[in-house]
Amino acid sequence: MTYCVGLYLNEGLVLLSDTRTNAGVDHISTFCKMCVEEVPGERMIAMLSAGNLAISQAVWNRLQEGMWLDGQVHTLRDVPTMFRAAQLTGAAVRAVFETDGPALRAQNIAFDVALLLGGQIGGQPQRLFMIYAAGNFIEATADTPFLQIGEHKYGKPILDRVVTPETSLVDGVKLALISMDSTLRSNLTVGMPLDLLVYREGTQRVTLRKRITDDDPYFRAVRDGWSDSLRDAYRALPVPDWVPA
Amino acid sequence: MTYCVGLYLNEGLVLLSDTRTNAGVDHISTFCKMCVEEVPGERMIAMLSAGNLAISQAVWNRLQEGMWLDGQVHTLRDVPTMFRAAQLTGAAVRAVFETDGPALRAQNIAFDVALLLGGQIGGQPQRLFMIYAAGNFIEATADTPFLQIGEHKYGKPILDRVVTPETSLVDGVKLALISMDSTLRSNLTVGMPLDLLVYREGTQRVTLRKRITDDDPYFRAVRDGWSDSLRDAYRALPVPDWVPA
Repeated sequence: MTYCVGLYLNEGLVLLSDTRTNAGVDHISTFCKMCVEEVPGERMIAMLSAGNLAISQAVWNRLQEGMWLDGQVHTLRDVPTMFRAAQLTGAAVRAVFETDGPALRAQNIAFDVALLLGGQIGGQPQRLFMIYAAGNFIEATADTPFLQIGEHKYGKPILDRVVTPETSLVDGVKLALISMDSTLRSNLTVGMPLDLLVYREGTQRVTLRKRITDDDPYFRAVRDGWSDSLRDAYRALPVPDWVPA
Repeated sequence: MTYCVGLYLNEGLVLLSDTRTNAGVDHISTFCKMCVEEVPGERMIAMLSAGNLAISQAVWNRLQEGMWLDGQVHTLRDVPTMFRAAQLTGAAVRAVFETDGPALRAQNIAFDVALLLGGQIGGQPQRLFMIYAAGNFIEATADTPFLQIGEHKYGKPILDRVVTPETSLVDGVKLALISMDSTLRSNLTVGMPLDLLVYREGTQRVTLRKRITDDDPYFRAVRDGWSDSLRDAYRALPVPDWVPA
């Protein structure tokens, strides 16, 4: 499994992924699931992946080498819009399915991949997409300003309750880390370290990229502080006075 | 889907179930998923169910009518121990599988059922079991003092972080409601009203049974208070001062 989350905020994007991959519970490894294509000042596009690692790595390689789209070979460095970037990525997923799908099916392995693609090109709006195994995609909007792939359930309640487009980037970092921590605690196939990317809208370059390890002092502060806060919070709720003593 | 949770606390048991059943998203109904067998002062046994409603209702009917166990017909009203109660319930699940399993398989319908069985008989310890579709079961212990069936992921982080055997019954009620609220918000197939049962250890009778509707003032207070608390809690966490302005 995997957990990746992308927040789509007025101030910019917060993208966070874990690094655990596993083939069974007795074969776990660490792989970065976050790839970035950047032409500083002109475009910044990041891709986060969940599912079969061979598929997502093949997708990224095809994107690097160039894919046919509208009669031309394109990469993420030269597509004119974020919509085209999502189309190109979807086309790469479909190309991998065409190449590897039959052999995977013959081994009874599902074609399992999901991607988040977020970024901004030139003066166009920043956008955040979720791309499915079929190569089609949806886009985050102000109504639902976050997208998740992989093991999304444990970390969703806090995002549902708190994230709005007005959430600041620093608060977004906090909330993505809280959401990830809930997932890490509950699903063994989601694991440290984490890869964090912060993108400030209108800059067309990576604002911050950070590998967060288990001993990262800020992550520890969030983790411990959050557990303490939850304990305090439930204690502060009114007592049900209708439970007989 | 369904969400049921049982807390196994030193002070007693807190059992909570939703009431939503669905056959597709366009056919939803309300059914109580909590059944109770009580001989006040001698025994209190409650069963919560998730999965196929026809299966769980058939299981409860067989338990009411009596099942063969160890060469005798037993019901939950006369089994000598909670372990036997779990065995009897497992035997009822297996009997339903024997009767209905082939016809369900012919319709490509999974034999999907999971049960929580909690209670206390005479001076024996209270116990809480989770019974699987195969009729086998596990038991809650002090290490993991809660069991969940159905859509368990959304409501698990708060329980993981806070519930211990020392948690009081009233705090247990709060926490079960918080856990349920997180689930209600995220999964449409979990729905109001709720059925709550509180059992105080050593009493061998239901302490409290309550149907909690959408306009229940306490549930509303928990729901709103919890959202407010989470907002306050994440704001109180330290700001990541390494995100460039």
